[in-house]
Amino acid sequence: MIGPGRIGAFAVTVSLIVAASSVGRTEEAGTSDARAAVEKGNARFSEAIARSDAKAVAALYTEDAIMLPERGAMVKGRQAIGEFWKTAMEGGVKSVTLTTLDVGANGDLAHEVGTVLLMINVEGRPPATASAKYVVVWKREADGWKMHRDIWNDPPPE
Amino acid sequence: MIGPGRIGAFAVTVSLIVAASSVGRTEEAGTSDARAAVEKGNARFSEAIARSDAKAVAALYTEDAIMLPERGAMVKGRQAIGEFWKTAMEGGVKSVTLTTLDVGANGDLAHEVGTVLLMINVEGRPPATASAKYVVVWKREADGWKMHRDIWNDPPPE
Repeated sequence: MIGPGRIGAFAVTVSLIVAASSVGRTEEAGTSDARAAVEKGNARFSEAIARSDAKAVAALYTEDAIMLPERGAMVKGRQAIGEFWKTAMEGGVKSVTLTTLDVGANGDLAHEVGTVLLMINVEGRPPATASAKYVVVWKREADGWKMHRDIWNDPPPE
Repeated sequence: MIGPGRIGAFAVTVSLIVAASSVGRTEEAGTSDARAAVEKGNARFSEAIARSDAKAVAALYTEDAIMLPERGAMVKGRQAIGEFWKTAMEGGVKSVTLTTLDVGANGDLAHEVGTVLLMINVEGRPPATASAKYVVVWKREADGWKMHRDIWNDPPPE
């Protein structure tokens, strides 16, 4: 549906935009508990990626999670998301560094805004990094907070 | 921080991934009310874009909303988000068609997964389209549900 020319036109539009401003924090009911849970979940995610443990990564998502990878099709469900990360790790993703910028929560849902830096090591290429910004919707289940919706996109071009 | 080679390495990683599966619906407390509110909000958003009314677009976001545009810096707050859309409309965005694929809710928070098709008309270029997939976190305030977090990214390359 989108040819390069079409993407080009939209890129022009986007490049006209002078985005701005730093990111602060909002407070909603239960936010401090949720923030601690989010940071704990992110630490586990980073640890699981660092040891290439796709099963542990998958366990951090809800059974009916939906992931929206940059330039990829939506990935639905814990098992498919585990396979996505397994493939990503086999493809060179060695570690992720997550920085949480904002958390808000209400009841059993929380939303997180953050940035991620990936270390990538592909056979025959120099080590590389990639960064993205993201929104994760976390959901509290019987056994704790899990990632329920997960989407990221590219930072501004340098 | 990211050169073209680095992005290239990550693109290779992403392109290795065979993403899959269709998107269903999850049900959580209050989801049917939230879904109706989300669809109403999206209709208002599309109408506001179609008449190039940046003020009406901005009013659909919370005062402390955060938007994460594809390849752009984060945009914080209703006013800055209104300016973003004003610039986008001046830059050629004429209409948006939103398709809601999933809504879940709990209390005063809801999350939406969907796709968007933009019609873009830049002076001196043929009319173009661009599509994206997105996650929006909606928040119920005293005067109704508003967009609180808004992020989108590119579909798979064709």
